[in-house]
Amino acid sequence: MSRYAIGLDFGTLSARAVLLDAADGKIKAQAVYVYPHGVLDRALPDGTPLPPGYALQVPSDYTEAMQETIHAVMHTDGVKPEDIIGIGIDFTSATVMCADSSKTPLCAYPEFASEPHAYVKLWKHHGAEKEAAQIDKAAKETNAAWLSSHGGKVSSEWVLPKVLETLHCAPEVYSRAQYFMEAMDWLVWILTGNACASLCGAGYKMPYHDGGFPDESFFAAVDPRLQSFMTDKYPKTLLPAGTSAGGLCEEAAAWLGLLPGTPVASPLIDAHSSVPGCGICTPGELMIIMGTSSCHMLLSESNAEIRGIQGIVKDGILPGYYGIEAGQPCVGDLFAWAALICMNETYIKEAEQRGISHHDLLTGKLAGYRAGASGLLALDWFNGVRTPLMDFDLNGMIIGLTPLSRPEDIYLALLEATAYGTRTIIDEFRQSKVTVNKVILSGGIPARNTLIPQIYADVLHLPVYVSDNPQACATGAAFLGIAAASPEVSGFSSLNEIAEKLGSKPKSVYMPQAEQSEAYDQLYAAYRELMQYFGEGGSNIMHRLTALRRQRQ
Amino acid sequence: MSRYAIGLDFGTLSARAVLLDAADGKIKAQAVYVYPHGVLDRALPDGTPLPPGYALQVPSDYTEAMQETIHAVMHTDGVKPEDIIGIGIDFTSATVMCADSSKTPLCAYPEFASEPHAYVKLWKHHGAEKEAAQIDKAAKETNAAWLSSHGGKVSSEWVLPKVLETLHCAPEVYSRAQYFMEAMDWLVWILTGNACASLCGAGYKMPYHDGGFPDESFFAAVDPRLQSFMTDKYPKTLLPAGTSAGGLCEEAAAWLGLLPGTPVASPLIDAHSSVPGCGICTPGELMIIMGTSSCHMLLSESNAEIRGIQGIVKDGILPGYYGIEAGQPCVGDLFAWAALICMNETYIKEAEQRGISHHDLLTGKLAGYRAGASGLLALDWFNGVRTPLMDFDLNGMIIGLTPLSRPEDIYLALLEATAYGTRTIIDEFRQSKVTVNKVILSGGIPARNTLIPQIYADVLHLPVYVSDNPQACATGAAFLGIAAASPEVSGFSSLNEIAEKLGSKPKSVYMPQAEQSEAYDQLYAAYRELMQYFGEGGSNIMHRLTALRRQRQ
Repeated sequence: MSRYAIGLDFGTLSARAVLLDAADGKIKAQAVYVYPHGVLDRALPDGTPLPPGYALQVPSDYTEAMQETIHAVMHTDGVKPEDIIGIGIDFTSATVMCADSSKTPLCAYPEFASEPHAYVKLWKHHGAEKEAAQIDKAAKETNAAWLSSHGGKVSSEWVLPKVLETLHCAPEVYSRAQYFMEAMDWLVWILTGNACASLCGAGYKMPYHDGGFPDESFFAAVDPRLQSFMTDKYPKTLLPAGTSAGGLCEEAAAWLGLLPGTPVASPLIDAHSSVPGCGICTPGELMIIMGTSSCHMLLSESNAEIRGIQGIVKDGILPGYYGIEAGQPCVGDLFAWAALICMNETYIKEAEQRGISHHDLLTGKLAGYRAGASGLLALDWFNGVRTPLMDFDLNGMIIGLTPLSRPEDIYLALLEATAYGTRTIIDEFRQSKVTVNKVILSGGIPARNTLIPQIYADVLHLPVYVSDNPQACATGAAFLGIAAASPEVSGFSSLNEIAEKLGSKPKSVYMPQAEQSEAYDQLYAAYRELMQYFGEGGSNIMHRLTALRRQRQ
Repeated sequence: MSRYAIGLDFGTLSARAVLLDAADGKIKAQAVYVYPHGVLDRALPDGTPLPPGYALQVPSDYTEAMQETIHAVMHTDGVKPEDIIGIGIDFTSATVMCADSSKTPLCAYPEFASEPHAYVKLWKHHGAEKEAAQIDKAAKETNAAWLSSHGGKVSSEWVLPKVLETLHCAPEVYSRAQYFMEAMDWLVWILTGNACASLCGAGYKMPYHDGGFPDESFFAAVDPRLQSFMTDKYPKTLLPAGTSAGGLCEEAAAWLGLLPGTPVASPLIDAHSSVPGCGICTPGELMIIMGTSSCHMLLSESNAEIRGIQGIVKDGILPGYYGIEAGQPCVGDLFAWAALICMNETYIKEAEQRGISHHDLLTGKLAGYRAGASGLLALDWFNGVRTPLMDFDLNGMIIGLTPLSRPEDIYLALLEATAYGTRTIIDEFRQSKVTVNKVILSGGIPARNTLIPQIYADVLHLPVYVSDNPQACATGAAFLGIAAASPEVSGFSSLNEIAEKLGSKPKSVYMPQAEQSEAYDQLYAAYRELMQYFGEGGSNIMHRLTALRRQRQ
């Protein structure tokens, strides 16, 4: 008898389902559904205009996506509903929504159709800056322990600022809401009837620390109306990674064409899901999802305090380990910037004639380059710094320019700068006695550009593996589905075992080159000096430039 | 009876003659001659290859240019040789050549045709770095007073390093040479038979200080073979600005179609010549010739010690005043760099479609910009710093970058950076009690781009005038010719009076705008902090990057 799991991967603009064979981890079928409403950043569906920085979604897009893609993959020859041993979900986060006790999102009610705060607030919704500052202040005044395990500064992208924003801007929505939850937890509620919070979502995007949340006094310190938020408006059950949230309820089973009781897994944040997806199941293997920004995930045997991380959560990514998340906010964005605006006419025409991208052209011109030969050094802080400095008023810099500096020199300096940024993160890990002994790069950028993993290997003095699985997240989600089934059915004892045996371990590896690494050590020493001067108290020039920019724009 | 003067302006690639009416200062005729040999930077005329950094010329190009252009302007209707009351010359500097006692340049002898050091060493010839360091060392060891009035560091572009290079690399040329001299002084020798050194050339490009040169012990300290250089190989007579070097000799008069005895002026360095050319004859008016680099000239009532200037010479530019020369080595070059490599495809196509230059496109996009709104700040040190830091191992920098930084933002930041650089120079002047109360910009760049003088006015808090005389240097040279004539003939008592009455005073003026100036004060404060950190002992990062670049290239 065949055993399959369904992995559902919810991105920012579309969702994907994969049908994965639990015997060999191979993807048997997949389907993609683009959200009809996409990201609402200018207006609501009824035309109500939105303030700048808003990024909302419509929850029915998710349920439609789930239904369409599951139907599509279940059309695969010879696959029957009884072959599905489990369903797993990964999702962007913090993607915050509210629903009443009937599981209905409040935006689905006509009276809230024009109310932005009744919609899903996407991870990149930037409307809660004031609320983030308010929570940060309360956390610092009450000396909250959780803040230090979340990088020492409240981000407006987390769950609580978005909730508080709703309380401030739409108190009637706040009062009607039964639960505020991550969209992935809402989907699990729909599927199973159980309203839970995944530990992954809660651990990294809520004030969670050492197994629990702060008590009511902290919430009251933020706003008296929030005092009983955790009791009144937040799911009571926390589900660790690799567990089941329950079986598929009758209604959902009918609607999806699957069997009632099919196990549904506790979901993971999308980036985190790629950790098991890429076969990572032991400490020391740093997984970097490189997209417009980079997200770093690492398993650790022990707890640690690390500057500027998103969070460190026991059982948050894989059972039995502390899962650490760190990040760099500008990576692919930075390369795109350079390839867009640091180009000359000759190069643009050459790329056009050869029918290649600017990235490929610039990379080609760098063949055989020698580290340090351009004399350039950059700070990758174009969108500020997440780990370790957690300072978004910092900005980018290029130093060492001469009239002979060429577009490819600038491009290279920016690629290198992101590697230095990663090295500062690894330095922080090691300073907190957390081991890193190899790097796995995932995402389209390092897969397309072999220069990048080589630079990372040379800069980091570590072997750098490149994942060749373009569906690492969806694969991880399917693994969650397998893990949600009982060991008798799945044949596996844990998510860790599934990751180890079925994970798509990367095949390409890049080793450090001694001569380049030596030059990079010199450049990195200079990078650290610039980091100290501009980011760690030497000079507030960058903050002043940012303040002046905001004032004069 | 008509009275005309001939002004000869020798540039890097061509020479120009103007025929100027001494009654009203108007140019009646002009002619240009492009040097047939141009700049020799790859090979000598006989094919002998040249090392990188060499920049040589062939002296016969100068004499041909003189003959051709004078003949051309003398063809003007109704102008007769007896109408010419004087001839003046301005020339690039230090442009060093050697000749034997027959005035023949040594490269004209067949035995030296393949010898690079027998040719003219152009101002930008960079072959004497080692020799500059050797002279610098000797100057510092002997505590030479002249060094502090020449910016505190010997430049390889000056006369003496180029001479010492010849002594090192071609001792037979050194020994055959009767004189080492500026090309302009050689031309005066050809014209008058008098071998003199113009005070302008000697004062700024030789170890001249407080009216004299160091004694033989200094030259011996540099190299024993140089001990009697000033006695043996350098003209004895120094000619201040505004004086006559003698009358045209029979031979030259015949060859040029002019009258023997026509007064020939003591020449000026080209940039300096534009000071009288633009009608500047009083202290406090800072003249900036903006080309690939910027050259700053200022008259002062009194002597002063100023960090990093090229020189301060009594009677060096105009009689009766101390003439100060300062400089920024990367200005037009910097704008060209930005317009070349910080461009995106859309902009390039737009410029093409509209048939305008990148400069004009970027400038157009900056209409109505608000200082500080881009958040960018740059250091204009792409070719190092002349005044005040005199450090050519420094390099350029752009700070404040975000993924939203646009090509025009970078372009503006670089324009602004050169204005901050000028402000540091003015700060140095004022710190040494030298007054600056207005700025006159000259050269093609500020004439074409009205954004630049406005930025300078806003940054400097000074009225900025733009010279509309494209021939300011040649005009100044013609004024020298008038001044070389006797007052009875010319009707003027001094070069100063000629400059005042005939100089083409700039018509357009740009006044500081309070709101922009206020933002610029904040940006300039940040610029000074960066200057202090990177250039004045805070961090040696830039030097390390430069050293690494040289080592790895």
